[in-house]
Amino acid sequence: MARFEVRLSGSGGQGMILSGVILAEAVGIQEGKQVCQTQSYGPEARGGASRSDVVISEEEIDYPKGRHLDVLLALNQESHDKYVGDLKPEGLLVIDSEAVRQYQFPNTVAVPVTRIATDDVGLRLTTNIVALGVICGLTRVCRPESLEKAILARVPKGTQEVNRKAFQLGLDAADASAPP
Amino acid sequence: MARFEVRLSGSGGQGMILSGVILAEAVGIQEGKQVCQTQSYGPEARGGASRSDVVISEEEIDYPKGRHLDVLLALNQESHDKYVGDLKPEGLLVIDSEAVRQYQFPNTVAVPVTRIATDDVGLRLTTNIVALGVICGLTRVCRPESLEKAILARVPKGTQEVNRKAFQLGLDAADASAPP
Repeated sequence: MARFEVRLSGSGGQGMILSGVILAEAVGIQEGKQVCQTQSYGPEARGGASRSDVVISEEEIDYPKGRHLDVLLALNQESHDKYVGDLKPEGLLVIDSEAVRQYQFPNTVAVPVTRIATDDVGLRLTTNIVALGVICGLTRVCRPESLEKAILARVPKGTQEVNRKAFQLGLDAADASAPP
Repeated sequence: MARFEVRLSGSGGQGMILSGVILAEAVGIQEGKQVCQTQSYGPEARGGASRSDVVISEEEIDYPKGRHLDVLLALNQESHDKYVGDLKPEGLLVIDSEAVRQYQFPNTVAVPVTRIATDDVGLRLTTNIVALGVICGLTRVCRPESLEKAILARVPKGTQEVNRKAFQLGLDAADASAPP
């Protein structure tokens, strides 16, 4: 894995920055790899698409913004439309199956991320943690144990159990999806 | 201001990532400028120094990591020692006066950031928000109103008032410091 780029995108309130920070801490602190985590704001960031990039590398990362994504998570249609062009042809697109209706990227996994958070976890706020479970299960970008540790270190006190459940349900949903 | 680089550094628990995100949102969302906010992890990030970079530009930001800092906040000695070499010669060093004892950078402002949070605000957790007030007051990297809005949008519900106070006390401390 010379360089591996993940972009987490969705609407402003879906916690994409926190999930980017958590993923970076799982890879960087728990697993000791080189990782850069970036948010960008500006004219290109207008509208309903919020994004967070995580770039992992074996060498020092000179250019920390995602350019050739290995994985794109898109939790809404606008994010999908805005960023799908940044995916490598052999990359993986992960979409919220109930929010992204129009897509044609060949290697796509559709998971009802928001519904799992709302109905199965019982807390819509955990959408970003369910999403981390899905991505971890589909890509093994890091070990599930590393990501769980990073999640539990970052989420508010008193919410550990619900977030642990959200992460596990995300992993389960990845297992249940057709392998990419 | 062609390019303006701020690095916020301290120990792991001092909330540097959140303050970087808030500063970026003040500049990018409230003021509509181009801004990139980055965390890096890796061998160079080992130890007791946690950092968050905010790069502001009038043009698209190609290289989002800080290289030639205009402002460095260092809340502990290790952060100071690690990053002071990245400051431009004409840059500004802001230190916690009770935590950083050894420094020789010419343009330095020393403020008891942690003590203000602990004693005057009454909540040590607001250290990073006091720090944002200090930096805003010293540099006018963004308007105080923009930064206050960004703070109130990010901090947990129920903590708005204490964080507003922390920000104001940081601004006041900047006003009371010798101008850089």
